[in-house]
Amino acid sequence: MKLASLNGGKDGRLVVVSRDLQRAVGAEAIAPTLLDALERWAECELRLQQLYTRLNAGQADGAFTFDPHQATAPLPRAPQWCDGSAFLNHGRLMETAFNLAPIPDMETIPLIYQGGSDDFLGATDDVPLPDESHGIDFEGEYGVIVDEVPLGASAQLARSRIALLVQINDVSLRSFGPREMRTGFGFFQAKPSSSFAPVAVTPDEIGEHWRDARVHLDLHVDCNGTWFGNPNGGEMHFGFDDLIAHAAATRRLSAGTIIGSGTVSNAGGQKGSACIAERRAIEAIEHGAPKTPFMRFGDRVRMEARRDGGTVFGAIDQRIVRALTPPMA
Amino acid sequence: MKLASLNGGKDGRLVVVSRDLQRAVGAEAIAPTLLDALERWAECELRLQQLYTRLNAGQADGAFTFDPHQATAPLPRAPQWCDGSAFLNHGRLMETAFNLAPIPDMETIPLIYQGGSDDFLGATDDVPLPDESHGIDFEGEYGVIVDEVPLGASAQLARSRIALLVQINDVSLRSFGPREMRTGFGFFQAKPSSSFAPVAVTPDEIGEHWRDARVHLDLHVDCNGTWFGNPNGGEMHFGFDDLIAHAAATRRLSAGTIIGSGTVSNAGGQKGSACIAERRAIEAIEHGAPKTPFMRFGDRVRMEARRDGGTVFGAIDQRIVRALTPPMA
Repeated sequence: MKLASLNGGKDGRLVVVSRDLQRAVGAEAIAPTLLDALERWAECELRLQQLYTRLNAGQADGAFTFDPHQATAPLPRAPQWCDGSAFLNHGRLMETAFNLAPIPDMETIPLIYQGGSDDFLGATDDVPLPDESHGIDFEGEYGVIVDEVPLGASAQLARSRIALLVQINDVSLRSFGPREMRTGFGFFQAKPSSSFAPVAVTPDEIGEHWRDARVHLDLHVDCNGTWFGNPNGGEMHFGFDDLIAHAAATRRLSAGTIIGSGTVSNAGGQKGSACIAERRAIEAIEHGAPKTPFMRFGDRVRMEARRDGGTVFGAIDQRIVRALTPPMA
Repeated sequence: MKLASLNGGKDGRLVVVSRDLQRAVGAEAIAPTLLDALERWAECELRLQQLYTRLNAGQADGAFTFDPHQATAPLPRAPQWCDGSAFLNHGRLMETAFNLAPIPDMETIPLIYQGGSDDFLGATDDVPLPDESHGIDFEGEYGVIVDEVPLGASAQLARSRIALLVQINDVSLRSFGPREMRTGFGFFQAKPSSSFAPVAVTPDEIGEHWRDARVHLDLHVDCNGTWFGNPNGGEMHFGFDDLIAHAAATRRLSAGTIIGSGTVSNAGGQKGSACIAERRAIEAIEHGAPKTPFMRFGDRVRMEARRDGGTVFGAIDQRIVRALTPPMA
């Protein structure tokens, strides 16, 4: 099943979207918002699935053309956004290039930071940022949205709580990252609002590409119309089940919590990168200095995962723009 | 004006509470929840204030006895929780005692970490935690709840967006902290759900004790019925206006965002501490080793700010308990 949220209200208006992303139908008779559906998932899932079946068969009353430009993030705001860094290839490249202290137990304890979740952007929204000198970067990721997870859940229990898969652009400002990491308090100004592909999907939608709690699909990333990378999500060192269990070790996670994979990254180099910082790290290692610049206002990034030639989540396709200064700032 | 949320629904039910915390009246005719009121603050503030005036005069229809045990956190879940560390005395003690690398620009750039905001506890709720060996600690703090803050807001603009003051127990698990700080990704498992005093108040409620965007009130902290500290909130190095402006430098903050001061801490030592870790740091510096133990299951902490002998926010008074293991964990 595929779900999206259209503009309207703080939490958007839930619609069911056809497998080919051509048609949609309002789901307000089942749940007005995706957050509400997730909070009553046991009750709503089957009914939404039935509506999805009717929509794909051309039998849903009130169906209309799905326009991704009218979509917000599937959850325009979420109870929680926990972003991992589960592709160790990415972490190792950054360590080597920037001479960072290695994290001793990175292979046994997942890395997760708490992100802001009050103001996500839609797939084609402009990304407003204050300053080109901040090292503007994208990060292509996969993520999952969970039903409520109790404190102390095992990875096995955690896996059973995965309701939906999503695709994310975790916009990052690299000039803040190193200092914020050194303070020990973690990323804050380095992480402005993240963006989401328009459609969230149940794991069955990607068939055999969903296994071991990982999304085994290439994530195709273009920057200003040019190939940047197509790394595969299957190379996560920790699965989403491990990330969720780590996040729930000392507190419960509300329904609607989003867990991110971190930048998709594959060893070997042939698949390119899903963020500029990683390409710059490779350049620094191979040539002594990075050469790919960070993004400027007006630059665009596009990210899409495809299965059997068809889009899975729809595309993130957005432009970086200068944020307006508040009138009385 | 004083506001609280009673049990009922994910966001609680908004009530106006009398200045002496003895009476309350439902505010559903103005806004069903505090979050809704904050999202329409310009429209709701005056009407809530008028109801507060009637309640204090004994003229509010439908008023009833206010029972803090029926209150949730003022915002049982918030769009965002950004916790500062604005009392430099606390940071310096921790650095000295535990031989941490000093943060070079701690006097010019505020420290803030992103906390989880999906599942706050009420003032008298038990605090369920999985393991006594995790170094269970309290942290007594003040905080503010803001109306929407635009990206790039100055400290001056930020100050004008402060809607309410709150009092917080930022429960912390000290055994996770040092490792999570070393990874650079910041606190995660170290920060289970925070707890809030039952009542949020507008700044005018503390009169001359609200100045320079700081709460100049002693925070009285008892552990198991014994004095632990009464440090004053006025000694913040950065005011809440600075913390908000820092948080809004690269993204806007939704109405209902909560900004915390970090552990209230005063130089000199006579005022005690608002967390065990700080007292242990002082013991380590003075005697070579910490001696005050962290909390055990069944231990209690109480935190209250008073003005002219009356309680301001009501008391946090809660017990640490062992969390239930999920049935299929």
